[in-house]
Amino acid sequence: MNPCSSILLTDLYQLTMVQAYLEQGMEDEAVFELFVRKLPVHRNFLLAAGLEQVVEFLSGLQVTTKELAWLESTGRFNSTLLRYLEGLRFTGDVHAMPEGTIFFPHEPILRIVAPLPLAQLVETRIMNLLNFQTMIASKAARSILVAGRKPLIDFGLRRAHGAEAGLFAARASYLAGFAGTATVLAGMAYDIPIYGTMAHSFVQAHTDETTAFEHFALAQPENTVLLIDTYDTEAAAHKVVALAPGLKQQGIMVKGVRLDSGDLADHARKVRCILDEGGLPQAQILASGNLDEYQLQRLIAGGAPIDSFAIGTAMTTSADAPSLDCAYKLQEYAGRPCRKRSEGKATWPGRKQVYRQYALDGRCDYDLVTTVQDPGAGDPLLHPVMTHGRRLVPAQTLTELRQRAATQLSLLPDSLRNLEDGHPYDVRISQPLQDLARTVDQCV
Amino acid sequence: MNPCSSILLTDLYQLTMVQAYLEQGMEDEAVFELFVRKLPVHRNFLLAAGLEQVVEFLSGLQVTTKELAWLESTGRFNSTLLRYLEGLRFTGDVHAMPEGTIFFPHEPILRIVAPLPLAQLVETRIMNLLNFQTMIASKAARSILVAGRKPLIDFGLRRAHGAEAGLFAARASYLAGFAGTATVLAGMAYDIPIYGTMAHSFVQAHTDETTAFEHFALAQPENTVLLIDTYDTEAAAHKVVALAPGLKQQGIMVKGVRLDSGDLADHARKVRCILDEGGLPQAQILASGNLDEYQLQRLIAGGAPIDSFAIGTAMTTSADAPSLDCAYKLQEYAGRPCRKRSEGKATWPGRKQVYRQYALDGRCDYDLVTTVQDPGAGDPLLHPVMTHGRRLVPAQTLTELRQRAATQLSLLPDSLRNLEDGHPYDVRISQPLQDLARTVDQCV
Repeated sequence: MNPCSSILLTDLYQLTMVQAYLEQGMEDEAVFELFVRKLPVHRNFLLAAGLEQVVEFLSGLQVTTKELAWLESTGRFNSTLLRYLEGLRFTGDVHAMPEGTIFFPHEPILRIVAPLPLAQLVETRIMNLLNFQTMIASKAARSILVAGRKPLIDFGLRRAHGAEAGLFAARASYLAGFAGTATVLAGMAYDIPIYGTMAHSFVQAHTDETTAFEHFALAQPENTVLLIDTYDTEAAAHKVVALAPGLKQQGIMVKGVRLDSGDLADHARKVRCILDEGGLPQAQILASGNLDEYQLQRLIAGGAPIDSFAIGTAMTTSADAPSLDCAYKLQEYAGRPCRKRSEGKATWPGRKQVYRQYALDGRCDYDLVTTVQDPGAGDPLLHPVMTHGRRLVPAQTLTELRQRAATQLSLLPDSLRNLEDGHPYDVRISQPLQDLARTVDQCV
Repeated sequence: MNPCSSILLTDLYQLTMVQAYLEQGMEDEAVFELFVRKLPVHRNFLLAAGLEQVVEFLSGLQVTTKELAWLESTGRFNSTLLRYLEGLRFTGDVHAMPEGTIFFPHEPILRIVAPLPLAQLVETRIMNLLNFQTMIASKAARSILVAGRKPLIDFGLRRAHGAEAGLFAARASYLAGFAGTATVLAGMAYDIPIYGTMAHSFVQAHTDETTAFEHFALAQPENTVLLIDTYDTEAAAHKVVALAPGLKQQGIMVKGVRLDSGDLADHARKVRCILDEGGLPQAQILASGNLDEYQLQRLIAGGAPIDSFAIGTAMTTSADAPSLDCAYKLQEYAGRPCRKRSEGKATWPGRKQVYRQYALDGRCDYDLVTTVQDPGAGDPLLHPVMTHGRRLVPAQTLTELRQRAATQLSLLPDSLRNLEDGHPYDVRISQPLQDLARTVDQCV
């Protein structure tokens, strides 16, 4: 499932600008950087994700004959633009923070260096890809920090914003540490473990709940997780207990039950007792139903005997912050650094690098944003990814990206690991970068 | 751009349940209905959208050989399920409210009647499609109600949740009354008018702003809308005035300017004066930059001289309500009505119809949800769409759907047309339906 790579997946103004650039012969090298202006509310950090899809998009960038004919039919574009688009491929350089890297506002996470029209044209889709997965990974990471070792599963496809959002949310949440997803196609596309139980309709389609449980167990002997809240949760738990010996004779162990409504902590406690007293101490309890990291924290802090959680809508839509204030800005053209000074939206000019410094306890201490010429100190976070349109290193596996994300989360200062707003992380703008901004401002 | 029609774009539990249904020979007729349980905060009504994509999804439903091989390779599914999926096509009946219909909680907007395994399998993608476009159309309609005749344009692709979300948001907002979108591919896919100006990078790539404006005007003589907030908004407006006579000699009229930052009302007033005094009374002012319906209302109520608005992130993500509490529930199986009674999630059983009653002034008065057998009174809102898997009527054009939406919005009672929470609309549950629910409960 490759992401859409059509050149037409862009804003109209990119095409009108490109036409003007071509007319004026403005095809010199441009440097654009993507960064986030400020953290959304309730976020102490962001977790970079989506770079792999950006590389796939850039590698596959093209316009089809049909699209070209349509562009021409609009009467909006001249032949210079149409000839330019025909056969256009991405030939630029890309530097980026690897997926699974923690980052903060004002830090570029991606740099594109390419002829101005080309670098301009790819803006919209690059933002679209990085904004979404980074937002989801950052949201999912909050649940991971709360859940500790309890497995979390993505149940969000039905309320994701379309198919691509559902697939990307499965990928980004797995990258952030989720155990897997319910989305079957994401399992196939990204090799993510898939999880699933049964729906209320399964119980309703049967004339009685016990028969429904039995039929499901026979069909899924290795994965008998029964949904018990269709009518009366505790009554259903007793039915599971009553059914278990018969199933055992057929070699089927009840693996667990799922709770999906009501007071989950209260039901979990009662159901745990019923299962334990009924000889099913091994049966696990999975909870779902409008969960988010806050409810997770409450349930876990309250000691609710829940073994794993399925999280859907809140994670897959990043419900409390459904966008990032990200920007893709021109920082240099034809060797001349530049920046935007619009009110509240000023940017730092030139090509930049971010260095991370660690405290004595090994945790992140502060970041330094500086010019690429400045030697800096600490771990540089931006690395080369593509050169002249070619990928430099093979794609990392999601397992590797998960490992990086886990390590990075473990290095966060404690104050940033809470769900509440922590003391903002220290992001320093270097003296050379401040000097450059001043110089640029004097030249306009 | 057809929506993804893979059978694998579903939750794993749909496949495990289907396997159990097949094993038990439970392939009788099932009736599922999709409805919204309650309105999100800040919504007085919902506007149905996305049905066309549901019909396309159902018409194209399939599993590829590659997908089938992958399913088999997981070792999770038996040959009965795999054989069932191979060559599976949608053969069911669909009733639905046409797109552009206003609706309220508890009212089914879609009914699927099909053999149980098939009706179950399509749940996830149907919800995914209807949840998103309905949510976006409902959000966009709020801006339309505020904006009156001022054109609104969708600028949201960059922060939409993936490609499909960007395209569907362009479609749903156009359906709700937007004038068009910046998303080029949406223009091609849905024949929606496309709009675009220029970005800050265009100004920055030039060594001075006036040259940037001139180059853009030469490239877009018919559509010279200049972005004037890169450095100093009013100074840039004076530059536009100074440039205009020279452009006029070349036959180019300045069509307008765009404001994208700062106090938009204040800038608009100052810029309007500068343009008027500079002999450019025809030049329009377009405003953009993190707008939503509340800011639109403030700007319009305050008399800001802004002619049109571009709305991005807030609309395209439905930022204040990024999901609907929608459900797709089994209401009847093998001729037996059923319902779910889970705490806070109980549903009304059986096949239902919704009738709308109008007051003497022609406005919507109340809706009646009842059984399909009950003759009801008023306008029935659900109509047949597909029978035996075949579309009954050709797709309506977006122009027709826009017309319906506009008419329906005009028939809303005034209290529901405000951005503030109105007195809830009267949705009545008929006596026959209440009786049916009681009967169903006694049978479980």
